[in-house]
Amino acid sequence: MSQPQTAITPRRDEDFPEWYQQVVRAADLAENSDVRGCMVIKPWGYGLWENIQRVLDGMFKATGHRNAYFPLFIPMSYLAKEAEHVEGFAKECAVVTHHRLEADGKGGLRPAPSAELTEPLVVRPTSETIIGASYAKWVQSYRDLPILINQWANVVRWEMRPRLFLRTAEFLWQEGHTAHETKEEAIAETEQMLRVYETFARDYLALPVFTGEKSESERFPGAVQTLCIEAMVQDRKAIQAATSHFLGQNFAKASGIKFQSREGKEELAWTTSWGMSTRMIGTLIMAHADDDGLVLPPRIAPSQIVILPITPKPETRDAVLAAADKLATELRAQTAFGEKISVEVDKRDIGGGTKSWEWIKKGVPIRVEIGPRDLEKGSVAVARRDRGPKEKDFVANGEFVGQAAAILEEIQAGLLARATAYRDANTVKIDTKDEFYAFFTAKNAGKPEIHGGFALAHWNGSREVEEKIKEDLKVTIRCIPFDAPEEDGRCILTNEASKRRVVWAKSY
Amino acid sequence: MSQPQTAITPRRDEDFPEWYQQVVRAADLAENSDVRGCMVIKPWGYGLWENIQRVLDGMFKATGHRNAYFPLFIPMSYLAKEAEHVEGFAKECAVVTHHRLEADGKGGLRPAPSAELTEPLVVRPTSETIIGASYAKWVQSYRDLPILINQWANVVRWEMRPRLFLRTAEFLWQEGHTAHETKEEAIAETEQMLRVYETFARDYLALPVFTGEKSESERFPGAVQTLCIEAMVQDRKAIQAATSHFLGQNFAKASGIKFQSREGKEELAWTTSWGMSTRMIGTLIMAHADDDGLVLPPRIAPSQIVILPITPKPETRDAVLAAADKLATELRAQTAFGEKISVEVDKRDIGGGTKSWEWIKKGVPIRVEIGPRDLEKGSVAVARRDRGPKEKDFVANGEFVGQAAAILEEIQAGLLARATAYRDANTVKIDTKDEFYAFFTAKNAGKPEIHGGFALAHWNGSREVEEKIKEDLKVTIRCIPFDAPEEDGRCILTNEASKRRVVWAKSY
Repeated sequence: MSQPQTAITPRRDEDFPEWYQQVVRAADLAENSDVRGCMVIKPWGYGLWENIQRVLDGMFKATGHRNAYFPLFIPMSYLAKEAEHVEGFAKECAVVTHHRLEADGKGGLRPAPSAELTEPLVVRPTSETIIGASYAKWVQSYRDLPILINQWANVVRWEMRPRLFLRTAEFLWQEGHTAHETKEEAIAETEQMLRVYETFARDYLALPVFTGEKSESERFPGAVQTLCIEAMVQDRKAIQAATSHFLGQNFAKASGIKFQSREGKEELAWTTSWGMSTRMIGTLIMAHADDDGLVLPPRIAPSQIVILPITPKPETRDAVLAAADKLATELRAQTAFGEKISVEVDKRDIGGGTKSWEWIKKGVPIRVEIGPRDLEKGSVAVARRDRGPKEKDFVANGEFVGQAAAILEEIQAGLLARATAYRDANTVKIDTKDEFYAFFTAKNAGKPEIHGGFALAHWNGSREVEEKIKEDLKVTIRCIPFDAPEEDGRCILTNEASKRRVVWAKSY
Repeated sequence: MSQPQTAITPRRDEDFPEWYQQVVRAADLAENSDVRGCMVIKPWGYGLWENIQRVLDGMFKATGHRNAYFPLFIPMSYLAKEAEHVEGFAKECAVVTHHRLEADGKGGLRPAPSAELTEPLVVRPTSETIIGASYAKWVQSYRDLPILINQWANVVRWEMRPRLFLRTAEFLWQEGHTAHETKEEAIAETEQMLRVYETFARDYLALPVFTGEKSESERFPGAVQTLCIEAMVQDRKAIQAATSHFLGQNFAKASGIKFQSREGKEELAWTTSWGMSTRMIGTLIMAHADDDGLVLPPRIAPSQIVILPITPKPETRDAVLAAADKLATELRAQTAFGEKISVEVDKRDIGGGTKSWEWIKKGVPIRVEIGPRDLEKGSVAVARRDRGPKEKDFVANGEFVGQAAAILEEIQAGLLARATAYRDANTVKIDTKDEFYAFFTAKNAGKPEIHGGFALAHWNGSREVEEKIKEDLKVTIRCIPFDAPEEDGRCILTNEASKRRVVWAKSY
């Protein structure tokens, strides 16, 4: 049976991991560098990250946070301060041991033996310990609290099996670090920031997410509670898109963040940390892209509309280009989602078909073609990325300018509706072990694994059950959801009584 | 003779370097971390950097550039590729030699001997080589040119004598890297970006600068031409505030950036790079701050106006805070410099005097006090950072809202005028060696060095003269200025004929 040809080979249903790599390449988002595990984020991919940064940064500031910047390097001994943290993080790190290079006498360079550091430095895998050292100096009294700071930074965690955006040795992220007077305040902060991530994912990335708490075995090393948002992507696996940690007094104790309380007693501060990274771009791709390439939600697209002037003949070229620029100016004066519409005119001198397909693969929400004949008719050809690549509407020029915002808003809403329908269709309440095991067993032997999706099932709360299921199926608890109703049930494995269903899935 | 007391001790005229450190501390901009040479940029300092980023980024985009992100790590061998570059940069670097830590058996950690890297990685001191490796892959034909990319990043150059913002092991910067088809285009780019820096320094930072070319000995390692902007600070020294390099085909050759020309021949690309860093914050401080602390140009201040509610009695507290919030809302609706005015209300429960002095030291352009008696009178007390700390204008509330933008614009213009007058008063045409040597000899023996300033003097163009003067006086050529008229003269040292004066100064 012949399949319609697609721009991306293989298709999602043929080989999902390879399809993902091909979409990243076709959309010109990023590529591997010669430095193992480190990626080059190309302008279109970085444009996405800039939009993510801009929006999230505004949400952080609206909730009272300010940005600061802490050192890239962490003294090795800092990582050993917090017992669980050292287990979790002090492993696959980039370690700086020298501060000078010298000629090696063979035309090359070598680390200068005379410039070995007394204490090695670790390139930050996360900054709790180095930021804690600063907070310990800044906080003396309850009057110095809360500290509400965020940092935009690069971090490094050595990776043996890197994958662009999803798992890279160096990645970009933001990490919020706050210190509070009371436990309640710190917990409220942890929850507030999770809701910020949830709102951002839903309203900007068109990603519906489960919100909840991680089980103990999936917790951030050193945290008392790890909250997360979990998205489903198109191979029905889960991906943790952001986390928010209530750290209790563990890190305050390790770093010495102490303050004089209102009652004049010395107390340890309560701290939180929360983060979201370039991994979100990988999530976005796997959630929305299709067999023709990337599909971008308009609110986060580096350009929302691309205008493609068609200039087959030299004698009409100037007029077409002028009309394209005029249309761009008119569109940029329009507002969608409360902001000016972003428009690009692609005047490159390459074939119209190639050019159009480039933008399809890049996922730009609306493509507008304008050529000599359109000029005569006063119309344009409008194509939407959420429809087939060959579907075009011929619209009067002025009419399109007036409709553009509504189309963008419709595309945004449509992507969220589609992702939500997909997620809901593949999220199932399961009450027996057999059903559960069958759900997570791939149905298409020989072909890439497609299993059931998310299972909502009861759990006895034990680590043993988690471990057994992880071993048998590579399935873990993604979260203990916040918004789930209490419900009597029985653990899927042990049949013990349980009060609430948790979300189980295979994951990235 | 008694001096009026100042908020910063020592004063500028007592000990300029120590005064600088005290201003950084008093304004709460940054502090040293436990990691040698690395600073912590605190929220007020980072707020400045965010404004610098936002404005410059807009200027880069308006000139056709886009942002991307390249790896933090550079293979050691890359640094050895460009002969001069290796001399200039492959020295004081942070060198990563291991990718894992392990328990050392004594309760601590150590770099795991089994995880030694085959090739050490250098934490980027600048990215010409790693970006060149990518461009070599991206460029095949003249159609792929120009590449116009900028990166916002952290870089590391090991420093033995670090000073906050001015010289730190890790600092933040932007680095533009472009590749072009022709030499002319690359030179035009180099010049364009220098003008962007000049405009930014003048219009936003209120810093008048000399623009011009560096002499060969001050050039970026591997560059054909280094252009720079040079500012004068209040100890009359020069500071290089930004540079723009025409790299010729040197880096293209080292990295293999080749393309098929319009004539079908293989050619090397012409490249440029240009950068500005957190050092600019140090420049800003040394140029505008006074003996009471930081003085911020309104266009770059994290907050332009701070409202200080005065709440001596509990019974009037709510009314005063409400009035402060109302005033903030009204002010935020006003526009200065084409943007909304930024306003902060400081409601902290600390003494009014302490609070007011904190904001003076932080350099906020306008302070507005509002207390119970002001409420009765419907007025506010307005203080400007460009006037004495005790000067206040009592203005009717509504009147101030209408004046705020004009006051901010007046402060901005005033700072530029003051810095320009200072620079001009201390920039002197000098035509004899004796005068030149006297100009650069400190007049105040025993006290901190205050020398003449900038000397405009003729030079025979030789490296020998530069070296002799550097050795004798620690004075260098800051730039061969663009905008200076041709003029017959004689070299200050050799008496040889010269066509143009160059700018000489001591420098940071």
